[in-house]
Amino acid sequence: MPRAAEGLGREGEVSRSVGISIKPGAQRALELAVELAGWLKQQGLRVVVAGDGLDRLDGVDRLSLEEMPRHVDLMVVLGGDGALLHVARRFIGSDTPILGINLGRLGFLTEAPFANMLDAVATVLDGRGQVVRHSSLQATSWRDGEMLHRGMAVNDVVLQRKEHPRMIEFEMHVADQFVFRLRADGLVLATPAGSTAYALSAGGPIVHPSLEAISVVPICPHTLSNRPVVVPDSDVIEVVLTESPALAALNLDGQEHMALQVGDQVTVEKSGTVSLVYLPGRNYYGVLRSKLHWGGPAAEASG
Amino acid sequence: MPRAAEGLGREGEVSRSVGISIKPGAQRALELAVELAGWLKQQGLRVVVAGDGLDRLDGVDRLSLEEMPRHVDLMVVLGGDGALLHVARRFIGSDTPILGINLGRLGFLTEAPFANMLDAVATVLDGRGQVVRHSSLQATSWRDGEMLHRGMAVNDVVLQRKEHPRMIEFEMHVADQFVFRLRADGLVLATPAGSTAYALSAGGPIVHPSLEAISVVPICPHTLSNRPVVVPDSDVIEVVLTESPALAALNLDGQEHMALQVGDQVTVEKSGTVSLVYLPGRNYYGVLRSKLHWGGPAAEASG
Amino acid sequence: MPRAAEGLGREGEVSRSVGISIKPGAQRALELAVELAGWLKQQGLRVVVAGDGLDRLDGVDRLSLEEMPRHVDLMVVLGGDGALLHVARRFIGSDTPILGINLGRLGFLTEAPFANMLDAVATVLDGRGQVVRHSSLQATSWRDGEMLHRGMAVNDVVLQRKEHPRMIEFEMHVADQFVFRLRADGLVLATPAGSTAYALSAGGPIVHPSLEAISVVPICPHTLSNRPVVVPDSDVIEVVLTESPALAALNLDGQEHMALQVGDQVTVEKSGTVSLVYLPGRNYYGVLRSKLHWGGPAAEASG
Amino acid sequence: MPRAAEGLGREGEVSRSVGISIKPGAQRALELAVELAGWLKQQGLRVVVAGDGLDRLDGVDRLSLEEMPRHVDLMVVLGGDGALLHVARRFIGSDTPILGINLGRLGFLTEAPFANMLDAVATVLDGRGQVVRHSSLQATSWRDGEMLHRGMAVNDVVLQRKEHPRMIEFEMHVADQFVFRLRADGLVLATPAGSTAYALSAGGPIVHPSLEAISVVPICPHTLSNRPVVVPDSDVIEVVLTESPALAALNLDGQEHMALQVGDQVTVEKSGTVSLVYLPGRNYYGVLRSKLHWGGPAAEASG
Repeated sequence: MPRAAEGLGREGEVSRSVGISIKPGAQRALELAVELAGWLKQQGLRVVVAGDGLDRLDGVDRLSLEEMPRHVDLMVVLGGDGALLHVARRFIGSDTPILGINLGRLGFLTEAPFANMLDAVATVLDGRGQVVRHSSLQATSWRDGEMLHRGMAVNDVVLQRKEHPRMIEFEMHVADQFVFRLRADGLVLATPAGSTAYALSAGGPIVHPSLEAISVVPICPHTLSNRPVVVPDSDVIEVVLTESPALAALNLDGQEHMALQVGDQVTVEKSGTVSLVYLPGRNYYGVLRSKLHWGGPAAEASG
Repeated sequence: MPRAAEGLGREGEVSRSVGISIKPGAQRALELAVELAGWLKQQGLRVVVAGDGLDRLDGVDRLSLEEMPRHVDLMVVLGGDGALLHVARRFIGSDTPILGINLGRLGFLTEAPFANMLDAVATVLDGRGQVVRHSSLQATSWRDGEMLHRGMAVNDVVLQRKEHPRMIEFEMHVADQFVFRLRADGLVLATPAGSTAYALSAGGPIVHPSLEAISVVPICPHTLSNRPVVVPDSDVIEVVLTESPALAALNLDGQEHMALQVGDQVTVEKSGTVSLVYLPGRNYYGVLRSKLHWGGPAAEASG
Repeated sequence: MPRAAEGLGREGEVSRSVGISIKPGAQRALELAVELAGWLKQQGLRVVVAGDGLDRLDGVDRLSLEEMPRHVDLMVVLGGDGALLHVARRFIGSDTPILGINLGRLGFLTEAPFANMLDAVATVLDGRGQVVRHSSLQATSWRDGEMLHRGMAVNDVVLQRKEHPRMIEFEMHVADQFVFRLRADGLVLATPAGSTAYALSAGGPIVHPSLEAISVVPICPHTLSNRPVVVPDSDVIEVVLTESPALAALNLDGQEHMALQVGDQVTVEKSGTVSLVYLPGRNYYGVLRSKLHWGGPAAEASG
Repeated sequence: MPRAAEGLGREGEVSRSVGISIKPGAQRALELAVELAGWLKQQGLRVVVAGDGLDRLDGVDRLSLEEMPRHVDLMVVLGGDGALLHVARRFIGSDTPILGINLGRLGFLTEAPFANMLDAVATVLDGRGQVVRHSSLQATSWRDGEMLHRGMAVNDVVLQRKEHPRMIEFEMHVADQFVFRLRADGLVLATPAGSTAYALSAGGPIVHPSLEAISVVPICPHTLSNRPVVVPDSDVIEVVLTESPALAALNLDGQEHMALQVGDQVTVEKSGTVSLVYLPGRNYYGVLRSKLHWGGPAAEASG
């Protein structure tokens, strides 16, 4: 996943389209969307909106999120990392870059602040953005040899018990090699982008986005010597629910859910990439430092 | 909680009673119960059984678990730590000692192996057992100032989201002092006995049973600098669910559940003790070492 | 260790003495000491100074830190937690309260900000301070049955290898019971006050100061299932260095060092208390929250 | 680092050479070396020995470890992971495969048990071994722009304070981007092979050997929100000691030491590979499971 720096400029195109999506229910996002749509039209660009809450915009086209990737040259998301994830999941396998404008706090994925929204969009339209391709995962569940469900995740595939309080028990294979049988609250399989989301709370490492890797992070494992493992994303991961007293579920990016029962099998493997575009000069480690307060927390007794 | 060593011998009593409870559905436990009941009757003792699965025993009295503490002088549980917890929860506040006979692996609470069952029971009846009083917790949930539910726990009170995948958010006060507002998968409040159960998987410390303390262990906390805190059990802990997108529940010893919604308040405080009786020479640290494989796991590069 | 709230006011005393100690080499501390000494003399109090760097103060008495506890009614330390520890180690077993005035950041032990120095001292002299008795540890090293060295610690006794890079190996007993044999970088034995210092960086829990407990926290243990253990401070802890390839040392509060070699034995047990005095309304959890940035660090993907 | 499976068989070679090195001072290793040398000579192979303790072998050639890589077709090490590391450090950049025969416990690097020594060597000589190329690191220290020292590591480069008990403070850049300024006991920079050695004890993740990555693992960091970071090994890591009260040192594989003082700079970057050869059917995860006792340690309360 090379950190390519490429612009949006497709010379010779008669007209370019920009998609807009907002965090549902966020009034501030709606106001910004109105402002952005107006400005884009002034620039002679076609504006396409997706999702609820953008009904009052005039002079724009409407498409479902699923249709967007094939019809827009840039996708702008107004919201936080959650809103961006919601959109990015539909852009897996597409080269169309997505720009996240955060409404409040800096996000891992949404780095541009809303106060600079028009500047940020102009910069990206000028081809001066920094495109980073993030890997994604495809998860498929199986029962008795039949496929149950298939979904995609940009951040993580999380196996969790559905009902408290019993642990689930599962067996994991990587590249057809048995890794462990474990009793735990669950298991996070995260992309590098997802390594700073739920996997981090569960005790996993931070994995740089340019690594072609999947983090395997058990949640509250019963076996105390268990540890997070980072495996190559060219390997297929297989998890089977075994003898568990509890129902379980698979959650994709915390946004899509697949119910599982004992004996069900889940295969997780690398899928296509998603292109996020950042402002020039964006610094991955600077975002980490800021989000994780590395300037700060201290357990000290010095004097 | 002094580690008292006291026997069961109540001189002058005309007749003594021994209660028996087994792990539900365990055939081996049933066979052992039959053997134990026969032997106890031979010794001139009254036998009282509780719970399902002991129907085919003859010549015994039957009582509910709730009635047991007032009617028996010793309670014997055949099963693992889970079965013992199930019984111990009804013995909170009673001085009647409980002896756990484990059917398989050594337990933290059930230390006597079934192969020595009759010897173990004889030893305890002779007053040569080692009684350890374990503290317990009482949890009460409140909505709009009205009490919703009240329950007891010997191991732990666990606040958890009921539905994946969203974190819950809560505020905790200890002794009326604000401690933190946290987003996490949940929170474990554990007695010292519970410190080696779920709290340990969640990253909490091992707390010696003689300490009058409650471990406060967040589950997958969003705030990375959050850490387990051990507080005096004379302090009342109060937790309020705040602005959470998810339904939550309170689990007592993983066996009793109380549903919660945003705004509900939970108070947790010390309750009565439970007396567990162990064989003489039992070593707390030896059990830890064995259960946690401290003789073993190693990350080494020496040679 | 009850959280007593008692003043300094000893009615009927003809004259009271206040000791002053500063962080060595801190110019700001020296200036504050001059200001404080002048103000104290104005109040008719005797001023006693200890340590280097206070030579230019006139009209004050001079004593070594060791003599201070028997001659002053209040000890004021201008500096951080390290400077306070340096003084507190000499006040073990004394009832004389110590007030820490921090020069910069809030400390776990030095809570009063220098901007309020005179108000803080006046408050404490008026008997409105909040005295907290902190427990301490005594560590003794032995070789071939002979005592090598004995020292005290307010925060922690740390066993560490003296030379990189080999791990040390040691065996620990608590209350004459074998706990473990471990290969690790070292071992922290911390009082509750010390639980927020080095022990916290090593992965130990936060232990409330009112608990009569010692935290046992291994540093980078080879055995991955090893975990911090909190034991009653009435138990004596014994550690023996075994077959270690490396020299080791015992560090007391990071300020006093005792060299050890293979076969040496260390016993650690509870010693006297140290009385720290805080301003009224001081909140233990508020200090934690502030020092550990619990208002802050977040691993989030919400939006 | 593809997991190549290639043999040693170089068709057409008139004579082949096998090097032998043993764990210093290990009597068992010496006996095995005698047996192995005799058998190799019977097969018509040239035997070359390195290191101390192999003086009594007759009919063999002697070379320093440094000369070995250019003169042998296979290197056999009798000992544990430490002995193998000692040899492997001299084979960085060479294609000559190294076979580790462990004398006792299974090692992460030395997987073949001594009881099968001759079979194992025969298998590898037949070209049926499984060669895994492990990455290595080169560390260079600088003072005032002048190079101080340069060394190599197969497992890890560890920055540590040389004298207890003060933390060191350092700043880290990766690929010229500032990552953090940290106070800690030290910092481990580990290859994937090293991720199961010291880095694991310090809390780092397990990283699969086929990933081209370096684990950055702080040792007892002062900043509680700090976390291990896995970065691409194509990036250069730079660490500068800042304002530290303590002397520090750089340890390479725990076997080579470079003294550092405040202001010194260290650059760590990817170096050549080392080829380890394993028996066919060797399973990376099986070794993990066995070494880390994943079959075992449990914190349970079920029953």
